[in-house]
Amino acid sequence: MPRGVEAMSCQRILIAIALLMQPALSFGEGGHKTFDLAEFQFEDGTTVPKTFLTYVTHGELNRSKSNLVLLPSWYSGDHHGYDYLIGRNKALDPKKYFIVATDMFANGLSSSPSNTPPPYDGPRFPQVSIRDNVYAANRLLTEEFGVEHIKAVIGFSMGAQQALQWAVSFPESVDFVVAYCGNAKEYPFGIVRLEGAKSALMADSAWMDGDYGKQPPEKGLRALARHWAAWGVSQEWWRRETFRTTGASSIEESLRAGETYWLSRDANDLLWQANAWQNHNVAETPGYGGDFEAALKSINARVLLMPSETDLYFPVEDALYEQKLIPGAKIERIPSIWGHDVVSDPAAIDFLNSKILAFLNNAQ
Amino acid sequence: MPRGVEAMSCQRILIAIALLMQPALSFGEGGHKTFDLAEFQFEDGTTVPKTFLTYVTHGELNRSKSNLVLLPSWYSGDHHGYDYLIGRNKALDPKKYFIVATDMFANGLSSSPSNTPPPYDGPRFPQVSIRDNVYAANRLLTEEFGVEHIKAVIGFSMGAQQALQWAVSFPESVDFVVAYCGNAKEYPFGIVRLEGAKSALMADSAWMDGDYGKQPPEKGLRALARHWAAWGVSQEWWRRETFRTTGASSIEESLRAGETYWLSRDANDLLWQANAWQNHNVAETPGYGGDFEAALKSINARVLLMPSETDLYFPVEDALYEQKLIPGAKIERIPSIWGHDVVSDPAAIDFLNSKILAFLNNAQ
Repeated sequence: MPRGVEAMSCQRILIAIALLMQPALSFGEGGHKTFDLAEFQFEDGTTVPKTFLTYVTHGELNRSKSNLVLLPSWYSGDHHGYDYLIGRNKALDPKKYFIVATDMFANGLSSSPSNTPPPYDGPRFPQVSIRDNVYAANRLLTEEFGVEHIKAVIGFSMGAQQALQWAVSFPESVDFVVAYCGNAKEYPFGIVRLEGAKSALMADSAWMDGDYGKQPPEKGLRALARHWAAWGVSQEWWRRETFRTTGASSIEESLRAGETYWLSRDANDLLWQANAWQNHNVAETPGYGGDFEAALKSINARVLLMPSETDLYFPVEDALYEQKLIPGAKIERIPSIWGHDVVSDPAAIDFLNSKILAFLNNAQ
Repeated sequence: MPRGVEAMSCQRILIAIALLMQPALSFGEGGHKTFDLAEFQFEDGTTVPKTFLTYVTHGELNRSKSNLVLLPSWYSGDHHGYDYLIGRNKALDPKKYFIVATDMFANGLSSSPSNTPPPYDGPRFPQVSIRDNVYAANRLLTEEFGVEHIKAVIGFSMGAQQALQWAVSFPESVDFVVAYCGNAKEYPFGIVRLEGAKSALMADSAWMDGDYGKQPPEKGLRALARHWAAWGVSQEWWRRETFRTTGASSIEESLRAGETYWLSRDANDLLWQANAWQNHNVAETPGYGGDFEAALKSINARVLLMPSETDLYFPVEDALYEQKLIPGAKIERIPSIWGHDVVSDPAAIDFLNSKILAFLNNAQ
């Protein structure tokens, strides 16, 4: 499958798959590298002896090691989940920046329930936090590339959680943070919404408390797919039957394409990513003792928050609330009816590229 | 349990239950009557030989038989689901109106999968349409009370679907229609959202294609509960931790109270109601051949649409769209952060009473 198709996000990819009658998503293809983290102590207290982080790079590190941009992956996505931002005349020109796109723990490529041997396999994998991902990526950057200070971290959704956590964990080590369609903590609404997704999957007894082996809980994954179908985009998107622009000719066809997408993922990996998403709060960063305001006020990086106007996961109000707490934070609302899935909306992608480019070049 | 408690809707009832440690919701208590529909042909073509409709009344029918107000039940609710509108100085004074509150097919009180003998028991119960409910209620009103023309039909949610269908099916037989938090058809977004709820329940193999007998699919019902938890109210409701006003002291306690509520309902009944909700469209009324605009333009009743400003099920945009198609329709937005569940918000109930009272008294 050509890179361009990989770079698109879920709605479009899954429709493309349905139309092309391909058996599975080319998840994780694209020549990624593996960084050996060796022993890693997760925030939940578990130390796993052999762990690793997968990633791809674009461009070259400059001599002063000052041009690194980090792109952390999002829920169910991989290291190609930001390709639409990379290129000449896009937000990130690989002739200017050294771009490192990482895979989160539990996404199925970096160390995950699905790819870790006993005794940490499947449901015995430690609970992952957003901070675990931030610390692991920091080890990649310092140990592999010798980079102690990065130009920017840019993230979508759970990637945005990682980007804002980076700004809190390493306040002197990053110049720019762009967080779109994601927040510095998961608010109660999101926690509850994710409970719906997890419960739908786990209602299938074939999940077997995570020990399903090679027999995935197919009914549960299909239920999870139908859960996300309504949450992912806006009410107006559905009312206008925008699925027709993705190649689906009916609601049912659109739903089935969604099932194909989610069935290509591992159930435990999805649950572990959801837990990390659900439990996130920068206030729990060591040193802040649960003080959310203090954690956000400590940020030195220049921050751009970009909520989607119709995002049902991360409503604009939450970003406005956080903007008030982050010194000098800017906000740009993404105009789109694509809800959370703005990254499948070509116009929204143009908007993102244009605003991020301007922010990195002109932020004062 | 006192009538006042019964009159409150789900969020509050379920918290009240959790706090009082009562074993089950007093669903259907309150002295309802049963109207024998005898043989009834459902829109799906199935004729069931013995069917019935349950209901309660308030007030007296006047001599000219011109003061009947119909209140059709909503998803998971019963004939006491509108008690907050009834009383002196409320929208519906029983000294003025003869109020008939009916139970929908499949709500567990009127003929339902859970209370119908073989061969139409459980999953063999016919698929129910909103029009089936409207025709059945019309038989009650004409055969039991001799009423051919009603003053008003007022409905919330699936009750609003019934109210608007009434205006299309019997354009000369109703003066006023109030539809709040509900539409004349289910839009694609709602269809997909309901797929999420149904799939979560049916992912539980204990559902057994509906033949679970006396062993309800508990995991599936809990998953359905968690599905609705995020949809039922607004993002802002959760961010403000409004569940604390209902007696719950944590997200988890609020979720568990929701599970108690949904576990008190029958799984097939919930699925059959969801199907009726999902498949509804006034355009399918005989004579309109699928023409939605023509169906709405045929309405003679005075119509008041009342969307909740934060309803994730029935967004304001859909009501505005329908307002344009219904001759002379008025619209009043309900200001509330309670999303779809405005009927648990005391301020919203005051607003509903005040606006509906004024509409019935002053509509020109």
